[in-house]
Amino acid sequence: MTAVPISLTGVRELVDGALRAAVGRLDPCTYRVAAYHLGWTDEEGHPRTGPAGKALRPALALLSARAACAPPESALPGAVAVELTHAFSLLHDDIMDRDRTRRHRPSAWTIFGEPAAILAGDALLALAVEVLLEAPGQGSARATRALAVATRRLIAGQALDMEFETRGHISLDECVAMVSGKTAALLECSCSIGAVLDGAPDALPAALEAFGADLGIAFQLVDDLLGIWGDPATTGKPALSDVRSRKMSLPVVAALNNGGPEADRITDLYGRDDLSEDDLREVAALIEAAGGRAWAELEAESRIQRAAEHLVTARIPEPVRAEFLRVADFVTGRDH
Amino acid sequence: MTAVPISLTGVRELVDGALRAAVGRLDPCTYRVAAYHLGWTDEEGHPRTGPAGKALRPALALLSARAACAPPESALPGAVAVELTHAFSLLHDDIMDRDRTRRHRPSAWTIFGEPAAILAGDALLALAVEVLLEAPGQGSARATRALAVATRRLIAGQALDMEFETRGHISLDECVAMVSGKTAALLECSCSIGAVLDGAPDALPAALEAFGADLGIAFQLVDDLLGIWGDPATTGKPALSDVRSRKMSLPVVAALNNGGPEADRITDLYGRDDLSEDDLREVAALIEAAGGRAWAELEAESRIQRAAEHLVTARIPEPVRAEFLRVADFVTGRDH
Repeated sequence: MTAVPISLTGVRELVDGALRAAVGRLDPCTYRVAAYHLGWTDEEGHPRTGPAGKALRPALALLSARAACAPPESALPGAVAVELTHAFSLLHDDIMDRDRTRRHRPSAWTIFGEPAAILAGDALLALAVEVLLEAPGQGSARATRALAVATRRLIAGQALDMEFETRGHISLDECVAMVSGKTAALLECSCSIGAVLDGAPDALPAALEAFGADLGIAFQLVDDLLGIWGDPATTGKPALSDVRSRKMSLPVVAALNNGGPEADRITDLYGRDDLSEDDLREVAALIEAAGGRAWAELEAESRIQRAAEHLVTARIPEPVRAEFLRVADFVTGRDH
Repeated sequence: MTAVPISLTGVRELVDGALRAAVGRLDPCTYRVAAYHLGWTDEEGHPRTGPAGKALRPALALLSARAACAPPESALPGAVAVELTHAFSLLHDDIMDRDRTRRHRPSAWTIFGEPAAILAGDALLALAVEVLLEAPGQGSARATRALAVATRRLIAGQALDMEFETRGHISLDECVAMVSGKTAALLECSCSIGAVLDGAPDALPAALEAFGADLGIAFQLVDDLLGIWGDPATTGKPALSDVRSRKMSLPVVAALNNGGPEADRITDLYGRDDLSEDDLREVAALIEAAGGRAWAELEAESRIQRAAEHLVTARIPEPVRAEFLRVADFVTGRDH
């Protein structure tokens, strides 16, 4: 893997102060849960210096200010707001999906209980709005409206994902629509929020959103590929983790929609209560044989290409465009 | 009981169209839960024509536009936003408090499951922001910021209320602070949001907020009194319901802080697993003997007086001031 893009190094330092100041407004009970979830404190509330997340969304927010020739700091409220919204969604998703670990630590609801975790998520969402509306200038109301719409789409994606668990057939279009909400909506908003805050003419935020939309799908495709064929040493997740949890991810849905005997066998195995390690490996092989892996790899590549094209038509300083593409390559693992 | 104030009759008709249009933006899965929770549909999603809530917050929002000499319709986005925020908080509170009924129906989480109910609450909160920011004029950003702060305070109140369940002593000030967040914050916002949307000078929203703050405490005091001494035929709740659930409501906390043998006996009985109907009646008598009932009645009266005084100093058309006071009398049961 080559070097981390410039925009991803140092973004934590730029954003962390404002993020901590925002979360510091919460009441002590809610703060405790939020600070743990954000990785700042341990279960007892003592400061902790573990590795922080890569702050992808804040990095994109700061870059999008530079796309509008504004100083990156002008997008700080936007960077904080998208990170708070991302944190809210993970906090609630862990409760809904009964996920007991998050970034190698027990998830917040397992430590503080569901009520406190629900409440902390609510607080982070409200705080995102509060912080963003404090940004100076007319752009802040527009940016907050865009964030609220992105949040509604994110929720719709999560709702669709949960609904998928209750039914038989899922079309590939439906699965892409789910990912467009659950993964891409907030990335679209992150990619454009700095330009919106700066009051840039509509064409620029629109191009940046379009970039974020395709980037989001590519990002999820790569994540889904790693969830099946990723090396546990690199991903930090157990091998075949998405097969283990019977996740209806994009490569699986693509394979099922290709039909044939492989699809029938996948459906059969996914329906069983207990799968041996051999069964898991068989499912992965079946998905590959049914074309799910090749489709996902090609589609990720094509989405990254399309994402790049959106930036060509937009009037963005060349170094900023190059940096957006470096981030895209980095998060989709194309830089090694 | 005398007639319902003019501002509370017909408010449903005024607000319902805009409220339904807003909720109609949600994805079908989330819509189903929200529409059930709002009383529009039954468990199967069929339209339902049961009694709707009294729409207190929307009524106050519309009145607050009239306080600024603006047409009530100008506060429609504010009325919708405070009602959505109220609905969000009830939806999540029911999950957190394990309340299985809401307005004589099974609460949403018992029908659709916790994940769907969490998600629907999130969606209503995001939708409140989206709708309010669509209001024309500069006031909408200020109003949305006020709503976000009110939501943070509401959450802090709920967090404090949950924390009360885990500890011994609660001071009366702490209990009032909890109610200021959990009950009063959104009422404050409702009382001022129409004036804020209209761009009224700060003094007017400030006076209306102060009115709402005292009204909110009075409202909760009356609710707490009914939770212990209310007639089930009028309240629709079982007799002594707050004693049954060991609620640390204002009259109870006042009684406990007065000390003496009654306080010790209340603490003893509240700590037991099973209380007979005789025990429940004894607790109610002890709260009264320790002065909890008299304090709450006097304090409610004094808060309503203070609320009224805030409106005297503000420049509000006389009929609107009178109507605010009628609503206050109505919701605190002083009009019979």
